[in-house]
Amino acid sequence: MNNNKIKTAIIGASGYTGETLIGLSLNHSSIDITCITSREYAGESIGDVYPRFSDSDLTFICPDINEIENNAEAVFICLPHGLSAEYAVPLHQKGLKIFDLGADFRLKSTKKYSDFYLFDHPAPNLLSEAVYGLPEKNRTQIKSASLVACPGCYPTSIIIPLLPLLQSKLVSTKNIIVCSMSGVSGAGKKANTSLLFAECNESVRSYNVIGHRHTPEIEQELREFAKAENITIEFTPNLIPVNRGINSVIYLNSIMDNITIKQIESVLREYYANEPFVRTLSNGKPADTKNVTNTNIIEIGCNYNPRTNRIILSSAIDNLVKGAAGQAIQCFNLVYDFEETLGLK
Amino acid sequence: MNNNKIKTAIIGASGYTGETLIGLSLNHSSIDITCITSREYAGESIGDVYPRFSDSDLTFICPDINEIENNAEAVFICLPHGLSAEYAVPLHQKGLKIFDLGADFRLKSTKKYSDFYLFDHPAPNLLSEAVYGLPEKNRTQIKSASLVACPGCYPTSIIIPLLPLLQSKLVSTKNIIVCSMSGVSGAGKKANTSLLFAECNESVRSYNVIGHRHTPEIEQELREFAKAENITIEFTPNLIPVNRGINSVIYLNSIMDNITIKQIESVLREYYANEPFVRTLSNGKPADTKNVTNTNIIEIGCNYNPRTNRIILSSAIDNLVKGAAGQAIQCFNLVYDFEETLGLK
Amino acid sequence: MNNNKIKTAIIGASGYTGETLIGLSLNHSSIDITCITSREYAGESIGDVYPRFSDSDLTFICPDINEIENNAEAVFICLPHGLSAEYAVPLHQKGLKIFDLGADFRLKSTKKYSDFYLFDHPAPNLLSEAVYGLPEKNRTQIKSASLVACPGCYPTSIIIPLLPLLQSKLVSTKNIIVCSMSGVSGAGKKANTSLLFAECNESVRSYNVIGHRHTPEIEQELREFAKAENITIEFTPNLIPVNRGINSVIYLNSIMDNITIKQIESVLREYYANEPFVRTLSNGKPADTKNVTNTNIIEIGCNYNPRTNRIILSSAIDNLVKGAAGQAIQCFNLVYDFEETLGLK
Amino acid sequence: MNNNKIKTAIIGASGYTGETLIGLSLNHSSIDITCITSREYAGESIGDVYPRFSDSDLTFICPDINEIENNAEAVFICLPHGLSAEYAVPLHQKGLKIFDLGADFRLKSTKKYSDFYLFDHPAPNLLSEAVYGLPEKNRTQIKSASLVACPGCYPTSIIIPLLPLLQSKLVSTKNIIVCSMSGVSGAGKKANTSLLFAECNESVRSYNVIGHRHTPEIEQELREFAKAENITIEFTPNLIPVNRGINSVIYLNSIMDNITIKQIESVLREYYANEPFVRTLSNGKPADTKNVTNTNIIEIGCNYNPRTNRIILSSAIDNLVKGAAGQAIQCFNLVYDFEETLGLK
Repeated sequence: MNNNKIKTAIIGASGYTGETLIGLSLNHSSIDITCITSREYAGESIGDVYPRFSDSDLTFICPDINEIENNAEAVFICLPHGLSAEYAVPLHQKGLKIFDLGADFRLKSTKKYSDFYLFDHPAPNLLSEAVYGLPEKNRTQIKSASLVACPGCYPTSIIIPLLPLLQSKLVSTKNIIVCSMSGVSGAGKKANTSLLFAECNESVRSYNVIGHRHTPEIEQELREFAKAENITIEFTPNLIPVNRGINSVIYLNSIMDNITIKQIESVLREYYANEPFVRTLSNGKPADTKNVTNTNIIEIGCNYNPRTNRIILSSAIDNLVKGAAGQAIQCFNLVYDFEETLGLK
Repeated sequence: MNNNKIKTAIIGASGYTGETLIGLSLNHSSIDITCITSREYAGESIGDVYPRFSDSDLTFICPDINEIENNAEAVFICLPHGLSAEYAVPLHQKGLKIFDLGADFRLKSTKKYSDFYLFDHPAPNLLSEAVYGLPEKNRTQIKSASLVACPGCYPTSIIIPLLPLLQSKLVSTKNIIVCSMSGVSGAGKKANTSLLFAECNESVRSYNVIGHRHTPEIEQELREFAKAENITIEFTPNLIPVNRGINSVIYLNSIMDNITIKQIESVLREYYANEPFVRTLSNGKPADTKNVTNTNIIEIGCNYNPRTNRIILSSAIDNLVKGAAGQAIQCFNLVYDFEETLGLK
Repeated sequence: MNNNKIKTAIIGASGYTGETLIGLSLNHSSIDITCITSREYAGESIGDVYPRFSDSDLTFICPDINEIENNAEAVFICLPHGLSAEYAVPLHQKGLKIFDLGADFRLKSTKKYSDFYLFDHPAPNLLSEAVYGLPEKNRTQIKSASLVACPGCYPTSIIIPLLPLLQSKLVSTKNIIVCSMSGVSGAGKKANTSLLFAECNESVRSYNVIGHRHTPEIEQELREFAKAENITIEFTPNLIPVNRGINSVIYLNSIMDNITIKQIESVLREYYANEPFVRTLSNGKPADTKNVTNTNIIEIGCNYNPRTNRIILSSAIDNLVKGAAGQAIQCFNLVYDFEETLGLK
Repeated sequence: MNNNKIKTAIIGASGYTGETLIGLSLNHSSIDITCITSREYAGESIGDVYPRFSDSDLTFICPDINEIENNAEAVFICLPHGLSAEYAVPLHQKGLKIFDLGADFRLKSTKKYSDFYLFDHPAPNLLSEAVYGLPEKNRTQIKSASLVACPGCYPTSIIIPLLPLLQSKLVSTKNIIVCSMSGVSGAGKKANTSLLFAECNESVRSYNVIGHRHTPEIEQELREFAKAENITIEFTPNLIPVNRGINSVIYLNSIMDNITIKQIESVLREYYANEPFVRTLSNGKPADTKNVTNTNIIEIGCNYNPRTNRIILSSAIDNLVKGAAGQAIQCFNLVYDFEETLGLK
């Protein structure tokens, strides 16, 4: 087990993911944050921007490849899609370990990338190096990765509950429908009137009903896992007036006729018996976001409707922790051979 | 058109539905509230309980059949399931028009009733008199009804968007899945710790995942409408931290291969061309509860996913207005031959 | 009493005040909205911007003096401070009645204006024409006004409860302290990260602690009313995670030693006996914003603390109705000699 | 420094304070929870009641003096006022260290107790043993206490900011006014309709305007500290729709004429230079509850209004951590000679 303290940079530290990552990193005994970048806050102390971190004496700087290269061996990148490559390509080349919390290295297909993100992939050559950073699925590959593409928040909440069921052969790979409800921090810290308090409070609405950009990474990972090229997901995100949390309701058609909640629960519980951050609920109890906020846990509830022969899963995560910064730290721990739960319990 | 002022009683006026109904009735030019009952508030003036209605000089009384019979020709009953019969049976017999906002007269099958409500129906003989009070489906029958069983809030949000699609033959009657998100007032004004602010705020959770009591009335009405005895609905309600509003996301498998959002929009728009309270959104815009709070409107959005050949509808209502008190008033207007929108615009 | 329908323009109709004003005007039997302006939404139909108003066929246009002059006799201006004069000056000159919901014509002193708004007043010559549009204080002057400067939301919630107490001589004019709590819509519909849902939800914070721009208009009106040039208000606004509503807690030192809640209540009740929009609560019950949302009512609670010999008032208004659009309509009704409550009940 | 692990019981662990205390204790390296009691949940595992604590195998039991005596050396009591004595008296006698998070041992005067709590004090003999558990004021006495009366949430937020100012002689001890805004968890986990989500959301209201039970303990501590028997506080609590957090706005009359924000800031900063849980904000920035949720920090902002010669302080705490469970742990650390911040950073 590694005993070093890893010099670490955080690029794009001014959003909600960056803020959460700073908090987790400051509490992590083996992370030494050496630089945090933000064009918006460059020159300001971390305590002025986030009073919560006033004990730290870090100051935001403008992102600068040389400065980062000289001061860090690991880099977390928290930038909007399309912007990571500018830093990931040169820093990866210089041998730094890259943990990208954005979307740019999640999809293996540049075609899917341009279909969903509407421009050409900025660094196609680097894609083969990237490992999709979902430890519950790709732990081994993550351990030896030089570039970890941390999953989106919705995919985390959807892929983890699905894996055991897909493996169990209890369910059809057709007609998988997911209705997800997300807190507003998931949309980022953007000065956008549609995200104002008075626009979101006392409002419930779907968005990106048929083309949310997290869809292809969900399908990519499920197809690879189930070795089934035809898996297609119907995924509907809904915006809900909470700060943090995603709850995904997942509908699956059962292949068998007579199954029980207990059976489904066993499938989940056995598959994830050794996972430190997966909690399976009993007796049909549905997942609740309030049980997981500020933790790296995914909580999974399962149910079976004999009237429709359908399995209904629900999962809850904190979109900023297990859905972003916490999962990135979990991957970091794997890459550096630390205890996987270090800084996350 | 009727010009009378109808003497009206409201039984069980202390919950959220009752409060909303009082507000609408006080603004209704042809309703003369003659008595409001509440065991909890008996003896208190309406202004003491609801400062909003301080201009009225009504006082809550204990419910009393004779008093109501002597003072009213129409009765709104806002009681929990199982309790309406005590008033509905004798008052109906004496010729009063009954508008029951509870669940007791919605199901035609006493078997379904006991399956879902877990006790025998308290007044099976009266069931044949009841008309399911959804004007968009049953307008003609409502006009001549003596007992109107006002629909539940979820069924209202689900049945209305489905009717045009079922009639269009664009969609399969199989695999209909509904994921609904409801505000907390939908659970009633019960002293229940699970409904406390600190339990619901910053929480998103499913409940009654496979056996919500609104399921059978949804299926009953859809089966009757589509003349398809096998329609089965997968219905998942979710509790969301808003006061008011239901948003239902409805998944339908398309039968055709090449349809467009415009086509679905036309189906909805034409079917509801003359409906005063149905709003169809254009261009794939999803419904948003904040567009309908404090109105009797149902807003419907539609979408088509060519990747999955699935139609996705979303609907938004105010659960206390179109989902309860407003719809009851709409039925009242029909029964008494008033302008259907009277007091609701 | 006037029977005409007044052709009316709304300038700056894209914010929360404008939206509320459109809603009230569409329901007002004597207002005929002839044009609504918004640079942002010019060319869009009102139903596309606000689905709630889909029944109307109005379309936003760019503001244009000639167009407004030709089509309207009354103008509501809902623009940020400093911007009203551009429209108010020429339209007033052409004889249109002006109802300014912004801050520019509230202060009589151009010195105070530049002290608090940090630039010179844009139309000092017009100030003498302006009447401060608080009907509970200035009803007579409003009736004959050609330019009504509608009060700010905080001042409305503070001045109305104070007038009867100041007149009563029960209280000192010194040491008046007001702690106000406001919903987020009060800050306007600005793309500002500090107003994002995730920044305001689960947050309570003061702002503009010693220099809020509503302070001088509160003092101006109280000084004039009480004929006491030395009245100074300590006013602290706090941002609270609700959409709508202001609750102001007002501390007054009693001059007498032995007073009762009943006495204070009588002072308020008698003073406002004929006011259609003032509700005085009994028995020390404090005001609650939820009793007034979507109404033009101000609710006032009063208390007396014998331990400190202090009177504590609380008031609740809907900041967008009685605090803005509703009060503007109330003034409009006075100017045009309509029933004062027309369109507001 | 102590290296033991202290066997600890938590009595009344089913409310919000108890839940928070369990969470902090499970993370505390020197606390060994040996029993948690709750009449409501007796027999249920902690993970069933609070999924968040599923990793623990604790089970709720009914409170039993002998069982607690045999298994614990320290006891946290989280019971409503009036109920602590039943456990505190016998367990104190048997030598256990008592940390009472309720109100029963905070007031030194049984007269004040009966005045505000409306019944006679249940254990007057024990009062002389009790130390008011505010480390920022009473650290030395707490270290040797056998019974710690942990302060209320409001008093914590009010006393801490006031101490430096009172000592500074910059302010008058007269006319101290406090307007506090509290989240709903502060009212406890009671099945009370007034605390339902739909009653608190979109509502802002004062309560207990002149007689809140936290008033006498605030005055007691300030009088003792300032050696001024005449200090009287005007304290108004307001209920705000957030889960957690108290923000107190405190008004003080300055004695001097020409002071600056910097001066006040220095007074606070110097007084609390060595306090691990006090954060003083700079440049007139007001406190914000969202900066302190889930921490044991009190954040203090200060301002000076030259127009009124008044000092305005604002403070923010998490009512369940620094206002209850966290502060109790802080006192526990002092009593047992652990690092004061153990388990709280």
